[in-house]
Amino acid sequence: MTTSSISTLEEIIKHKIDFKTKPPGSLGKLEAIALQAGLIQQTTRPQINQPHIVVFAGDHGIAATGLVNPYPRTVTAQMVLNFIQGGAAINVFCRQHQIALRIVDAGVDADFSELAGRKEFIDAKIGYGTRNYLKEPAMTQAEMDQAQEKGRAIVASIHETGCNCIGFGEMGIGNTSAASLMMTAFTGIPLEDCIGRGTGSNDEQLLLKKKTLAAAYQKHAADLVPGASATTILSHVGGFEIAMMSGAFLEAAKRRMIIIVDGFICSVALLAARSQEPGVMDYCIFAHTSGEQGHRALLNWLGVQPLLNLGMRLGEGTGAALAIPLVVSAVSFLDEMASFESAGVSNKD
Amino acid sequence: MTTSSISTLEEIIKHKIDFKTKPPGSLGKLEAIALQAGLIQQTTRPQINQPHIVVFAGDHGIAATGLVNPYPRTVTAQMVLNFIQGGAAINVFCRQHQIALRIVDAGVDADFSELAGRKEFIDAKIGYGTRNYLKEPAMTQAEMDQAQEKGRAIVASIHETGCNCIGFGEMGIGNTSAASLMMTAFTGIPLEDCIGRGTGSNDEQLLLKKKTLAAAYQKHAADLVPGASATTILSHVGGFEIAMMSGAFLEAAKRRMIIIVDGFICSVALLAARSQEPGVMDYCIFAHTSGEQGHRALLNWLGVQPLLNLGMRLGEGTGAALAIPLVVSAVSFLDEMASFESAGVSNKD
Repeated sequence: MTTSSISTLEEIIKHKIDFKTKPPGSLGKLEAIALQAGLIQQTTRPQINQPHIVVFAGDHGIAATGLVNPYPRTVTAQMVLNFIQGGAAINVFCRQHQIALRIVDAGVDADFSELAGRKEFIDAKIGYGTRNYLKEPAMTQAEMDQAQEKGRAIVASIHETGCNCIGFGEMGIGNTSAASLMMTAFTGIPLEDCIGRGTGSNDEQLLLKKKTLAAAYQKHAADLVPGASATTILSHVGGFEIAMMSGAFLEAAKRRMIIIVDGFICSVALLAARSQEPGVMDYCIFAHTSGEQGHRALLNWLGVQPLLNLGMRLGEGTGAALAIPLVVSAVSFLDEMASFESAGVSNKD
Repeated sequence: MTTSSISTLEEIIKHKIDFKTKPPGSLGKLEAIALQAGLIQQTTRPQINQPHIVVFAGDHGIAATGLVNPYPRTVTAQMVLNFIQGGAAINVFCRQHQIALRIVDAGVDADFSELAGRKEFIDAKIGYGTRNYLKEPAMTQAEMDQAQEKGRAIVASIHETGCNCIGFGEMGIGNTSAASLMMTAFTGIPLEDCIGRGTGSNDEQLLLKKKTLAAAYQKHAADLVPGASATTILSHVGGFEIAMMSGAFLEAAKRRMIIIVDGFICSVALLAARSQEPGVMDYCIFAHTSGEQGHRALLNWLGVQPLLNLGMRLGEGTGAALAIPLVVSAVSFLDEMASFESAGVSNKD
């Protein structure tokens, strides 16, 4: 799209928003979302069609050590089954808002052959968990490329069913650790400020997590230099689910989909996608500020303001699911509200 | 209810929340809402049934002077017709979330006989707008009593149809001015800090609004003393729609309904109800922080944290409508999510 066509459409949409029967600006952030949706879809009447949440699940070598995670690593696989059975928070919220849910095995340390053929389940396994980055890179560059490619393919196939709005979530015991290491590598924000309690570390566990991650960073310091590529960062300290999600971001932006960014880990996956293709940001709506330490700093660094701030820190795409109805509200007011003229309402003097 | 039964039910609900398949506390404010809903309904399985938004509309004597409002006073009546025709923001959001909408003529300066018999419309007119409080009390004590009684009756009749969750909204050109005067009278917060731009005053209009309201307050200073009753404050500087809403709050709490509090004007109406019956607060869920100056200070004064902060300042109950799905999410996770035990998921070590 050319700059002039954007500016013209932008003016038309802003005018349409301002002449709805309400004081200018009085719908706050919903007005910005309506404009963004219109620019993404290049129309004054954006629509949300068949919204999806895709949850990428993967295991982490580091989690087998127990140094960073209060929950055992087996919980990743158990939660995948919980998702498929419909018992997790993300299932509840997706049912409430008629959001289609897909669960992706990006690299869980479990065999899910029993789930083959289930519509909700997508087998994209890269391996049975990453390697322990305390000792070696989490994955090979080939694995990282494969993960991104599979992430792209998953989004492509969902888009082809008619979906134009997609949110990503994740499940992976230990993945806040990978995300913290990636965040410091991409942003230069001190590692300590990128680390939080994850699923609920107590003070002692948090101290151990910080010490462990400092050692992990040290191990890869020669590669994680300022300006290191997404490939380098993801392969050294990333996760299969994070790498796959970064490919998913790239494909969704390429296809001009509205992308709903969930919490801490999703925002870090976006850092990788953004470093490969800065334009991806134009398609992103940030769902919520997570309660996980590090997310607020990351959002500030990105210069973005999410829709919700409910103190949630569950992952799974739960923040994205709760934000989607607000995005629907934004496009709906733009489409359905009367104008001052059509309703016979007097405008300001 | 007795203290011991509360504490037992509270413990049971908290335990139920903590053993859902998620880290404790990870659903943030939704967990507090789930608990509150359970305590309101005295059950571990609270439900939201037939949610309603009731918009109280009224005109203000002060608005005829043009000293406080950029939009002409006729907009109140025009917007009532817009609500009935389905073209306002509140219509869009209520349709989206299957919320029943009722529009109450609490005291609009217009004749709505054409709307008689419309299910969405409730005729509870106290008068054709309040009197100008620059010169005399806005209403008589008898009018104020009548307004509260009608507010109570409206909620009673909605509750009897099976609704257990109700949000209030308002429409009334000039009503941020009444709300500012009431807020300073109830809270002692300086008048200046209670006044905002309303529907969009520019700097010059805001200055005139402040000057006008300072004069109005001065006119009634002998009555608006610290500890003045809700009756005194409402009758001197209130509005018909605000008085009626305060009665609606009282009835909804008496009937143990979940009450969704919208923005600035609704929070001020609640101040009146709260001064008459402090227990009303237990039933209130605060929907959003309005962009209207004064609301944040009022929320802080009340010691409450709303669900949303979208910079909205439209009124009509729009914030309440957007918050209701979050309340539904809260009771739904409590009801539908699997527990660690039922899902076979390992809990923390």
